[in-house]
Amino acid sequence: MSKTPSIILVNPQLGENIGTAARAMANFALPDLRIFDPRDGWPNAKARSSATKGDWIIDGASVHDKLEDALSDLNFVYATTARPRDMIKEVMTPDQAAADMHARIDGGQKVGVMFGRERWGLHNDEIALADVVVMAPVDPSHASLNIAQAVLLVGYEWYKPIAQSMGMGTQEAGPEIQTGLKMPETRPATKEEMVGMFEHLERELEAGGFFKTKEIRPKMEVNLRNMMGRAEFTEQEVRTFRGVISSLSRGRYKREKDN
Amino acid sequence: MSKTPSIILVNPQLGENIGTAARAMANFALPDLRIFDPRDGWPNAKARSSATKGDWIIDGASVHDKLEDALSDLNFVYATTARPRDMIKEVMTPDQAAADMHARIDGGQKVGVMFGRERWGLHNDEIALADVVVMAPVDPSHASLNIAQAVLLVGYEWYKPIAQSMGMGTQEAGPEIQTGLKMPETRPATKEEMVGMFEHLERELEAGGFFKTKEIRPKMEVNLRNMMGRAEFTEQEVRTFRGVISSLSRGRYKREKDN
Repeated sequence: MSKTPSIILVNPQLGENIGTAARAMANFALPDLRIFDPRDGWPNAKARSSATKGDWIIDGASVHDKLEDALSDLNFVYATTARPRDMIKEVMTPDQAAADMHARIDGGQKVGVMFGRERWGLHNDEIALADVVVMAPVDPSHASLNIAQAVLLVGYEWYKPIAQSMGMGTQEAGPEIQTGLKMPETRPATKEEMVGMFEHLERELEAGGFFKTKEIRPKMEVNLRNMMGRAEFTEQEVRTFRGVISSLSRGRYKREKDN
Repeated sequence: MSKTPSIILVNPQLGENIGTAARAMANFALPDLRIFDPRDGWPNAKARSSATKGDWIIDGASVHDKLEDALSDLNFVYATTARPRDMIKEVMTPDQAAADMHARIDGGQKVGVMFGRERWGLHNDEIALADVVVMAPVDPSHASLNIAQAVLLVGYEWYKPIAQSMGMGTQEAGPEIQTGLKMPETRPATKEEMVGMFEHLERELEAGGFFKTKEIRPKMEVNLRNMMGRAEFTEQEVRTFRGVISSLSRGRYKREKDN
């Protein structure tokens, strides 16, 4: 439990929202749910059914009569709010908060994130228990996120570097976007294979009268090689495309044979 | 409309999910909603009520009988999926996709993001219409996000740099993802032009006996659209490639005329 941030729902009103928050926690491998003063009591069947595959998180949730009890073992607490409050507290975006959480947890701390009740959010005395405020950047004219959405954004940012270390996505990669070009059981074509394919295409185009003049041919060939080359065919795709060329030009051969 | 990515919901089942997706769009200032084949028809009262303050997005949504129509004016399309597919398409995380969208929109392109039906996601032939796949990094054992959550994550990443430029949050600039989109004196093809080209190719391949069996045709078409789609043809290149198709298949027509 101590290796991930705890999620603390403060006075949630609807079981459905508790459930969907738990589901969002499951999406990002956050097992520890703590609930302070759920309006409709506990356990809550609606919370469990809304959690779908996150039901084990509902089953393992702890429920507290005092918010301080829900936070007592934590070293550092983040309070999520939809709007700026008149409070002198550092404000972080979810990604900044996630980086901060990772640093603290790596340093042996226990951390948690508080999410307020539907509509009214956290009271000022509840925010006062936190160390920093977390605000997601949203359109100021449509600032409301429901609890599950707020949990989702925080969980998402928390999980990003974990996913990266597992090889999903590679944000750091820089200029070119090199997220695993998925190449199931095949390899990129070699230049030799590409040239063979282009020569095949050009032979058939010549035979089909594609090149209107002899002079235009080199430029057209360069254009074709450029535009097709951008697709970065695999070896299998080269064979597929050669099948396309053969299939399209078949009529000509039939005809020649007939004559 | 053209300054923000369009959101395309593909065959959504529940009005509630359409509504909460619209609400997530409102959170991140994304006004353009397009819906392909909503299961329960349109308009949908539940969609409108679930959107709360995003109801104006529901009111302005366009509804389409063909997915191609919903994409026809777009230059570049992202398909969100929960799991890797056996498809050779580039896979981006939401933040990479957002950076890519900003670059393309700044360059004058129109882009859109497709979200699949509940439970089953997008079909392979639908993904084939997209240029890249977007996968959020989630715990592989709890990978399912509902539509609104998926829209939320994409919208959140899209909005981040906008919020930053408005002075919300102060995250460090992050890796500038510069897709070298070199499109001299021509514009990227629209989806309508690409679909027209693919249909031309498929007609000729059918006539040429390329598809050995009727059963294999859909899968082969998806493969062809994927491999050719990666090249990101310009409008000029679409015309060139249609010239290639016509030229290669000309033999067949000559022959038919002779008979």
